[in-house]
Amino acid sequence: MKEYNIAVVGATGLVGREMLKILSERNFPIADLKVFASSRSEGKIIEFEDRKLTVEVVKEGCFEGIDIALFSAGSDISKEVAPLVKKAGGIVIDNSNAFRMDKNVPLIVPEVNGEALNDHQQIIANPNCSTIQMVMLLKPLADSYGLKRIVINTYQAVSGAGKKAVDELIEQTKAYLNKEEIKKENFNHQIAFNAIPQIDTFLDNDYTKEEMKMVNECKKIMADEDLAVTATCVRIPVIFGHGESLNIELNSTYNINDIKNIFANTKNVELIDNPAQEKYPLQIDTENNDNILVGRIRRDYSKENTINLWLTANNLRKGAALNAVQIAEYLAEHDML
Amino acid sequence: MKEYNIAVVGATGLVGREMLKILSERNFPIADLKVFASSRSEGKIIEFEDRKLTVEVVKEGCFEGIDIALFSAGSDISKEVAPLVKKAGGIVIDNSNAFRMDKNVPLIVPEVNGEALNDHQQIIANPNCSTIQMVMLLKPLADSYGLKRIVINTYQAVSGAGKKAVDELIEQTKAYLNKEEIKKENFNHQIAFNAIPQIDTFLDNDYTKEEMKMVNECKKIMADEDLAVTATCVRIPVIFGHGESLNIELNSTYNINDIKNIFANTKNVELIDNPAQEKYPLQIDTENNDNILVGRIRRDYSKENTINLWLTANNLRKGAALNAVQIAEYLAEHDML
Repeated sequence: MKEYNIAVVGATGLVGREMLKILSERNFPIADLKVFASSRSEGKIIEFEDRKLTVEVVKEGCFEGIDIALFSAGSDISKEVAPLVKKAGGIVIDNSNAFRMDKNVPLIVPEVNGEALNDHQQIIANPNCSTIQMVMLLKPLADSYGLKRIVINTYQAVSGAGKKAVDELIEQTKAYLNKEEIKKENFNHQIAFNAIPQIDTFLDNDYTKEEMKMVNECKKIMADEDLAVTATCVRIPVIFGHGESLNIELNSTYNINDIKNIFANTKNVELIDNPAQEKYPLQIDTENNDNILVGRIRRDYSKENTINLWLTANNLRKGAALNAVQIAEYLAEHDML
Repeated sequence: MKEYNIAVVGATGLVGREMLKILSERNFPIADLKVFASSRSEGKIIEFEDRKLTVEVVKEGCFEGIDIALFSAGSDISKEVAPLVKKAGGIVIDNSNAFRMDKNVPLIVPEVNGEALNDHQQIIANPNCSTIQMVMLLKPLADSYGLKRIVINTYQAVSGAGKKAVDELIEQTKAYLNKEEIKKENFNHQIAFNAIPQIDTFLDNDYTKEEMKMVNECKKIMADEDLAVTATCVRIPVIFGHGESLNIELNSTYNINDIKNIFANTKNVELIDNPAQEKYPLQIDTENNDNILVGRIRRDYSKENTINLWLTANNLRKGAALNAVQIAEYLAEHDML
């Protein structure tokens, strides 16, 4: 079996560590493995199976011989470092927002639009976490019924904002319980026992970047510029796992049980929909689950051809690291490396 | 000034205590004040201004001379006890679900449909908390543009489920932080650092009672049976204050600044909408605020004549106790007692 030289850039972050874990879990065929992070972490040792990897900082020539570089270090680093990988002949799979809407960059969820990998220029973008979860469910609906309009509301975990954000939720929660002062650094408002209807910064149209990522990335991945999509993204005091409520208008009539069956038979999607037993997807159930969990599927009686549903998924794995590794797997399996 | 004999049934609960607090804050003209609760609390003393009130249990004849009885003790108690108040000649303002959809019972938010109090049979229903918050914003929009369809997503606080639910969130949170076992009694799933997409029990149509309350109560209060409404209600680990995301399709074109101005000039509604300064309604800001806070008002580019907005309000005050007291005030001011 062919083995590949892999680099992980941003290897000490929440997503980077998850990338390494998933590469190991899924036995990705690795020859050489290099790990990069900021100078703060330089020289740190990361254990990977029986290897001891020394954290390096990116410098000229460091990507020589690398087949795939998995990036999760933020947009600025991606823009700066991706050209070095390209120059060295490797492929970047980038988890940041830097290249997602670039026409020359495929934006990929392998189960949804893997075939778009046939045409790339050494940079491949991993979509936003909440977008990945959603399109995994939109694809089978689009195939069977066609999609007209989607109204998205998210219930997003703090881990989507990184390790410091998780620590801040924990620290604020302790402070609240101890009646101490609540300190804010990563979030602009208190997140403990509160919801913040803002993820990322605001754009001129009064939507947040996160909301417009969901709208624009959804259209690109679904290859449907006319798809009507609107989003409200809200951060809630949950540590892991994003929840999403979707109101989906289809292009044709449907039978609700058919839709449940479609999801039950969609790869990497898990139907959890039993109101009588009060079973439905929960964010805490995504911790050790790589599937998109879907439930609360019901007819929207306010509008024809429309349904409501609720989904949860692990925002760090399928929402980020796992999807990136799956892209690498797709490239390897289709001899694209 | 005329004074009234008041009873509070369920006086030791979260909402009951808030009712007493609000009666005092707003100087409701009280002659006699009686407080009722279950036998567990019988004989307890509740201080109300300079009065010391002894908690009684309901028994035959206990409502003699009572003008208004404010109920917040659950549907079963309401159904059992309301007839006693009626028999004694008093008026019930009931915070439970027992009578809300009864055709002979007005369902009132004073700012929205106070005039419906002209016709009652001694029982008046206080709407569901999340419905009250919402219709306060729908009314001015209906008046100016007409309403076509509303897609509701809620982000509801645990206090809507009572004091024990609040205690459970706190206890589960402490247990999580201390890596101890998480115990569930009031919630069927873990609520600490998790969201539960179920409030109240499920109906045959796979919606929850809470969701159908929002749909049906909204139509009744807005006096618009044809209004298209769909709801997804989610409990999140917030203690006080419900958040709601509304996608509202209007019947006519609009200018987004006009809508902001309408809300800025609506009584008991407060516009907090400044994306540049990252200001918008938060649940923690509803603690000492009786207004409906509205913000994140923006054009929905996916559908003509449609907007998105976000609101928060104090679920125990305007969402319950305050609205009930406002109904009593309306009756008093309009010589209906």
